[in-house]
Amino acid sequence: MRGDRHDRNGPFLAASLLRLGIDPARITVVGDDPGALEGALREGLDHELLVVSGGLGPTHDDRTVELLARAAGVGLHTDEQLAAQIEEISHRVATRLNRPYADFEHGVRKQATIPDGAVIVGLAGTAPAIVLEVGERVAVALPGPPRELQTLWPRVLETEPIRRLLARAVAPSRRVLRFYGASESEIARALAEVGGDGSGVDVTICARDFEIHVDLFVQTGAEARADELEAGLASKHLFSRVETGTAELVLSLLRDRGLTLATAESCTGGLVASRLTEVPGSSDVFAGAIVAYSNELKVQQLGVPDELLREHGAVSAEAAAAMARGARDRLGVDVAVSVTGVAGPGGGTPEKPVGLVFLHASGPMGERGLRFDFPGDRATIRGRSAVAALHLVRRLVTQS
Amino acid sequence: MRGDRHDRNGPFLAASLLRLGIDPARITVVGDDPGALEGALREGLDHELLVVSGGLGPTHDDRTVELLARAAGVGLHTDEQLAAQIEEISHRVATRLNRPYADFEHGVRKQATIPDGAVIVGLAGTAPAIVLEVGERVAVALPGPPRELQTLWPRVLETEPIRRLLARAVAPSRRVLRFYGASESEIARALAEVGGDGSGVDVTICARDFEIHVDLFVQTGAEARADELEAGLASKHLFSRVETGTAELVLSLLRDRGLTLATAESCTGGLVASRLTEVPGSSDVFAGAIVAYSNELKVQQLGVPDELLREHGAVSAEAAAAMARGARDRLGVDVAVSVTGVAGPGGGTPEKPVGLVFLHASGPMGERGLRFDFPGDRATIRGRSAVAALHLVRRLVTQS
Repeated sequence: MRGDRHDRNGPFLAASLLRLGIDPARITVVGDDPGALEGALREGLDHELLVVSGGLGPTHDDRTVELLARAAGVGLHTDEQLAAQIEEISHRVATRLNRPYADFEHGVRKQATIPDGAVIVGLAGTAPAIVLEVGERVAVALPGPPRELQTLWPRVLETEPIRRLLARAVAPSRRVLRFYGASESEIARALAEVGGDGSGVDVTICARDFEIHVDLFVQTGAEARADELEAGLASKHLFSRVETGTAELVLSLLRDRGLTLATAESCTGGLVASRLTEVPGSSDVFAGAIVAYSNELKVQQLGVPDELLREHGAVSAEAAAAMARGARDRLGVDVAVSVTGVAGPGGGTPEKPVGLVFLHASGPMGERGLRFDFPGDRATIRGRSAVAALHLVRRLVTQS
Repeated sequence: MRGDRHDRNGPFLAASLLRLGIDPARITVVGDDPGALEGALREGLDHELLVVSGGLGPTHDDRTVELLARAAGVGLHTDEQLAAQIEEISHRVATRLNRPYADFEHGVRKQATIPDGAVIVGLAGTAPAIVLEVGERVAVALPGPPRELQTLWPRVLETEPIRRLLARAVAPSRRVLRFYGASESEIARALAEVGGDGSGVDVTICARDFEIHVDLFVQTGAEARADELEAGLASKHLFSRVETGTAELVLSLLRDRGLTLATAESCTGGLVASRLTEVPGSSDVFAGAIVAYSNELKVQQLGVPDELLREHGAVSAEAAAAMARGARDRLGVDVAVSVTGVAGPGGGTPEKPVGLVFLHASGPMGERGLRFDFPGDRATIRGRSAVAALHLVRRLVTQS
């Protein structure tokens, strides 16, 4: 509630539930105030499923379990088997931190106290995750740290109360369309022109990393309608029907062809290389990069001729081409891609304004250059340039 | 509500309001269902301030304004001056998209229809942002796209209803403590040992990018208590009392000393360079980077001796030192920092497991090497390594 972090649990749970055929109605974030939390829990119990995260810790201000029991109208009891389990873990923690176990004793009893009738799903550290049936409704309490929540969530889905709930839901199938080069509003218009979603097909359109990700959630029986929507949305901008990220896709395309890759970066400053090396196993394709932020390094490390920089400037199609060819040559790779531009906020001129970016890809199948005038701030310009570099390699390699 | 994006508006508004002395009570996310939205708006109007974002568009499913009026119990009217403004913009959009203006006409009337008594704050595209007084309460409706919301927000704060609200609030002062090398639970324990927050001081502790960011929000009169807390929290891990990011801090330290910087990266694959070049104006300090992902490039581009790699391996203190010295020499910079490690998930061995990372910084003031065994996945290991590299340069340069 202080704005210092984004809620990652709500979207994770909403996306998971949607895939299982459960329509998420509301995400609520509240602070430590017990009244606010109890109010939110009561509202949640108006729905068939309530999932709450956080507030399971050992201290007095972690009150989720106590308030959930109150909202559900059930009592609390200490589960002695659970207490023994938490005690054992706490002893280990006390030893590791070199602190007396007495410091933990109160917390152990507190964390082993759960609503009557609750199913214990598992422990995250010393915090138990629980599932509680409340009449026809189900409540789930999970730890707040996203990694712990995500680890315990599959186990929640295996509990009897949730299995009964899921048996009533019909999971839609999902189709994935990935676009590059189209705007979100173009896709939205194409969708509207083909009749929009509904009739058993839910469509999400999301601009992410400067691509447009469209997901179709298709109810059983609505396959023909989904085919129509898919046909209406398909365009030259559609580049993938699978969820694989673009860096991974580019690496696969190169790997399939036995080609290696390097980058030569100026304004992106290593961002393209960083995106590529995010992918596990990228090392068999990606050899390395030269980040030539200064003109000296463009000359010295990439062999861009001094005269070329004097004549055309470092932000030019000519410099981009020389950088890509220089990287191919100097780093001994099959394919190289370069980026040079004005990321701003300073450094722009009337001839070369902020947002002007040149890219070039060079490989055994030929050469491609691109010029962009990106709107937006420094981070946007760098981000778009990096994605554009990946797509330029994709298009060079696939000759599309 | 489909989990395909994170809410950025709620945290932005919560953080801004907290600084102004308004305690955010709740963030609610709802989908397109009118009943769910109206319910959330009615709950919001139980508070002194309700800010709603999104649903201001030209189509029938954008119903925020209509439902806000209903929840507030006021009527709607079409503002003709606003309609003329939106019409003018729509004409321009129609021309640009080469579509008949008739397509827009209905949307213009719809977007110019606002609750009786509402103050128009400004337009984001064709969507008006409004402020509405509802008795003692104030409601604000803002566009959903974060950039548009953030642009209009300062204008909202200047309206009369919000100024009156802010006049009743007391903005706390804010103190910033930035730690590196301590865990979140160590800081939390230090805070508990000095008595915890409260008594006019709110404390937020946030692990961000592998640093711990502590903010103290201090009410007037609680300065002495804040001093006590600050003294209790201070440790050798405290590295900054300002909000400046670490990359920017490192660049400033180097700039002040007239030094230039380069990176030599293996497992981080350009991530350190990318973080440094995120900072506007980094080019006067940061010259460039060599991302030597393959061993060949470590030898060829950074001059790491072949024998050294054979004897110690690419993931070793010796390789890290040779990489940093090689980058200093080859790129002609004053200071260079290197990273080499096993980011996983593959590539680990019993001797060199996933998470083993060596860093080395070399400069005119000397040399420093570090070894880490990072837990976590590939992204965590790379992220922690990049932050560790920045802090290693900071500590080398400041000799701390």
